[in-house]
Amino acid sequence: MHFSTVALIGRYQDSGLDTPLRELAAVLANANRKVLIEEETAVNTGVNEFPTASLDEIGSQADLVIVMGGDGTMLGVAREMAKYEVPLIGINHGRLGFITDIPIQNAQAAIQAVLGGQFTIESRSLLEGSVVRDGQTLTTALALNDVVLNRSGRSGMIEISVELDDEFMYKQRADGLIVATPTGSTAYSLSANGPILHPSVNAFLLVPVAPQTLSNRPIAIPNTGTLKLTLTEIGRAETGASVHFDMQTWSNLQLGDQIIVKKAQHQTRFLHPKGLSFFSTLRKKLHWNIMPSS
Amino acid sequence: MHFSTVALIGRYQDSGLDTPLRELAAVLANANRKVLIEEETAVNTGVNEFPTASLDEIGSQADLVIVMGGDGTMLGVAREMAKYEVPLIGINHGRLGFITDIPIQNAQAAIQAVLGGQFTIESRSLLEGSVVRDGQTLTTALALNDVVLNRSGRSGMIEISVELDDEFMYKQRADGLIVATPTGSTAYSLSANGPILHPSVNAFLLVPVAPQTLSNRPIAIPNTGTLKLTLTEIGRAETGASVHFDMQTWSNLQLGDQIIVKKAQHQTRFLHPKGLSFFSTLRKKLHWNIMPSS
Amino acid sequence: MHFSTVALIGRYQDSGLDTPLRELAAVLANANRKVLIEEETAVNTGVNEFPTASLDEIGSQADLVIVMGGDGTMLGVAREMAKYEVPLIGINHGRLGFITDIPIQNAQAAIQAVLGGQFTIESRSLLEGSVVRDGQTLTTALALNDVVLNRSGRSGMIEISVELDDEFMYKQRADGLIVATPTGSTAYSLSANGPILHPSVNAFLLVPVAPQTLSNRPIAIPNTGTLKLTLTEIGRAETGASVHFDMQTWSNLQLGDQIIVKKAQHQTRFLHPKGLSFFSTLRKKLHWNIMPSS
Amino acid sequence: MHFSTVALIGRYQDSGLDTPLRELAAVLANANRKVLIEEETAVNTGVNEFPTASLDEIGSQADLVIVMGGDGTMLGVAREMAKYEVPLIGINHGRLGFITDIPIQNAQAAIQAVLGGQFTIESRSLLEGSVVRDGQTLTTALALNDVVLNRSGRSGMIEISVELDDEFMYKQRADGLIVATPTGSTAYSLSANGPILHPSVNAFLLVPVAPQTLSNRPIAIPNTGTLKLTLTEIGRAETGASVHFDMQTWSNLQLGDQIIVKKAQHQTRFLHPKGLSFFSTLRKKLHWNIMPSS
Repeated sequence: MHFSTVALIGRYQDSGLDTPLRELAAVLANANRKVLIEEETAVNTGVNEFPTASLDEIGSQADLVIVMGGDGTMLGVAREMAKYEVPLIGINHGRLGFITDIPIQNAQAAIQAVLGGQFTIESRSLLEGSVVRDGQTLTTALALNDVVLNRSGRSGMIEISVELDDEFMYKQRADGLIVATPTGSTAYSLSANGPILHPSVNAFLLVPVAPQTLSNRPIAIPNTGTLKLTLTEIGRAETGASVHFDMQTWSNLQLGDQIIVKKAQHQTRFLHPKGLSFFSTLRKKLHWNIMPSS
Repeated sequence: MHFSTVALIGRYQDSGLDTPLRELAAVLANANRKVLIEEETAVNTGVNEFPTASLDEIGSQADLVIVMGGDGTMLGVAREMAKYEVPLIGINHGRLGFITDIPIQNAQAAIQAVLGGQFTIESRSLLEGSVVRDGQTLTTALALNDVVLNRSGRSGMIEISVELDDEFMYKQRADGLIVATPTGSTAYSLSANGPILHPSVNAFLLVPVAPQTLSNRPIAIPNTGTLKLTLTEIGRAETGASVHFDMQTWSNLQLGDQIIVKKAQHQTRFLHPKGLSFFSTLRKKLHWNIMPSS
Repeated sequence: MHFSTVALIGRYQDSGLDTPLRELAAVLANANRKVLIEEETAVNTGVNEFPTASLDEIGSQADLVIVMGGDGTMLGVAREMAKYEVPLIGINHGRLGFITDIPIQNAQAAIQAVLGGQFTIESRSLLEGSVVRDGQTLTTALALNDVVLNRSGRSGMIEISVELDDEFMYKQRADGLIVATPTGSTAYSLSANGPILHPSVNAFLLVPVAPQTLSNRPIAIPNTGTLKLTLTEIGRAETGASVHFDMQTWSNLQLGDQIIVKKAQHQTRFLHPKGLSFFSTLRKKLHWNIMPSS
Repeated sequence: MHFSTVALIGRYQDSGLDTPLRELAAVLANANRKVLIEEETAVNTGVNEFPTASLDEIGSQADLVIVMGGDGTMLGVAREMAKYEVPLIGINHGRLGFITDIPIQNAQAAIQAVLGGQFTIESRSLLEGSVVRDGQTLTTALALNDVVLNRSGRSGMIEISVELDDEFMYKQRADGLIVATPTGSTAYSLSANGPILHPSVNAFLLVPVAPQTLSNRPIAIPNTGTLKLTLTEIGRAETGASVHFDMQTWSNLQLGDQIIVKKAQHQTRFLHPKGLSFFSTLRKKLHWNIMPSS
């Protein structure tokens, strides 16, 4: 891969991105790559000495997309770029940076190494979720982390009936239910006591949030199946339920609505500098298995 | 205890309560007890052949209060009756009935046994929670189960700083944080993976809901302390946070608001028919420790 | 599949197997199938009116093996039959019967249905584990459920360093560490708080038993990798450590010993009567997601 | 408290204790306190310029006991000193040092502060456990952390029936069952997913290790009760079961044996330098609630 055209996308309204953005663009220009700045990023940062492009133009023209921001920015770009399958690389300018795994102070060296061929590439599956009411699909959206069905309101639980390929799995009364990709297994699902799935495991996770049963337990299912979550009880009128595709919310679900979740047709491709380890990120950022110390 | 005056309170707008209510009232009248029907219950059920009374009149006049409904009804009555310390007994006309522990079909026999002196009585501590902003107390309420501080909105977590008797305990990013009494340890706290506290343990529980840390763990603290929960981050504008006293919600918390939680001055007194066991209820209703079976 | 030759294997020294064994053999003979009785089973039950065969003869001659006993019996047969890949079907004559999923009272009807073509077949991956000391392989064994490395003694923990494909994952101080297949995810791993893996997920689980870290969390890794567990601390002299392949124990591990675990070359093939559901077994036998009830 | 006589006890066979021991003894002598060196510690370290004393002499003569070692050393001394109720202070010369909370490099300053009155004192309850067979008490021992009943062998689980004050709680099939004090709630119990109990909560914890039920959950019970654990199944002959009082093992339990556990008559008294916080120790040593970081 030569990466002739490289696009840069920054976090929405992130002040302080102009300098690192300019520096990265200069690294790319010096390496004789065509640089595209995402149009809103250009306006937002005032970096206007390079051609700008819309997200769709970037998708169809770029060979590599560099995302500067936090994991939320990366999730949004990944969903937008999914149908183009253009590789993405993340520079962390946010709080945690789990999937935007390059610290911003290492950005230039990392990008130079990538341009020199020092990288690995991996595919990450996405979820496609739809809301179906009375046989009609009301909305469809992608998610790189998770599709979450939860009570949107204040008190009371919702009840969800879960089927895999039309076979009944269980009913659950809970605050919510998370369907997570391996990528999402280290996000909200982990807070709800879910296990970690290595990115290359071909499975999705079902993890309840605050379930009313003592005997619940997360389950990993093959990612070739189709899940159907049916809202069988929605609590008091004031409560309601919503569904979230990563962080995008669709509210006002009604009793009997179904959320259909399956693997999306396209995959996201993540580029990492060589030597960056998934397990090392787990240990360093999430303090996974940190030992007691004196 | 002779229980000369016995009050009956039914679940709000519960259809189908009139017959069992009349039957129970007859049992009491036949035993020469003065019967009071809570005024809204009388209107709601059409049972108007007995004197009616407001909740405050019941509190000051009754020697025993019989609550017919679900756990939510009992929680509400318990908070209203707390300052009178009148004993309560619960007849389950709801879904689960953990603290309303007498099945409605056993109600007459159980009440007759109680009138005959066959009962045990136990005290349950209540929480008193206040919302403080800039040194001003905005609201104060009681809770028999729990005080829950959580994000009220759709996405993003809240951050809470927790102190016990002005000593810093920890910061937590989570969906929410539960402060539970032993009574509440078998309610929402249990869904959030909290332990069970026997009703006579003098402690409160702190249990996070979907915490962002891997290394969280519930903690039981002595019930003589004063907890201060400070909202140190409240997520996006759209998110917001609320505090719940049992099921009563106080919304629109602001950054920096403090929730002060301590043991309430008064206790609730629960009456149980003799022979009813806390552990048996755990096993039968929550299926605690149910063994695998062939 | 015609299943011309069908072998019957019973649980070792299980009294009371003779009658159901005879009945099943008669069903097979009436259907014109050649019947083989495993030689120890024949001795043990006194059923000697059919030809007997050793396990190896069964592996090379039988088209179907019927196992009567508990899950332990099935695990043993599965390991012995792995290299022949002959299909196995389990009749539960034990306590739980999770993988021996046909109740013994339904055995004749179920086997007749199978002979009539009413069955599904699924492959289950096996683990192959080796103990390596100073570069020498001391023992190698198969496991259908799990390879467990644990302290064999009384007190103190062991410390294990874990690598996947020579990449460091973490160190763990614990009572033990479980490497489980999806089949094993509903066995010991579940007791150690592991998630459930659907049998068709291509992954193995790593689940610690009583880990000293607060921030541990189970992880599912692709089943194409090779795990290396190194004993980096073994506690007091009296403690020691052992490794278990399903229930077979290899004791007397020494400091520095390595357990190498990877997917076995062969797979076990399980036959199930049509209509038997994995999720239904989880709900009925393990009470997965059983709701609170009044 | 004046602490006229102060005893020093070092970890058994800990090389490298002589220098810090001499330095601490000198601090005490300079402050005109009578110094006693525990007799085995004196032999072991070669510090023989002070009077030596047996543990019992220390118990009856000392006003303060300084323990140098790890938590295991402290547990042993606490059990020995319980009946004398002499205050203990712990200097960490071990790996973790949760209850020996003064780092050895701060020992002299800390002890000087204590002699100057800068300390807090707290009582910690102890467990008294007995093994009863056919009505005969076979052994009785104290535990500051926990009484653990577990399978001592290799495979198979044990089954335990649990009663509190002769009321049936539950049966459990598991690797083991932990009865922990608040002090023990941060030791082995925490590894088995138990909650944390603040040291001043008047409760004991029951926490199963690798329980076979999905619907188990730890429970805190009042420390005024008497627990009876009965071994109702002991697995295969080779398995067996043992009971551990802190780290002291009593093996060869038989089917039907009962472990009786209740609060010990005496309490341990711990001295801490002023300003040392329980929550701070949880955060610093166990990394309780450590946040994800970039």
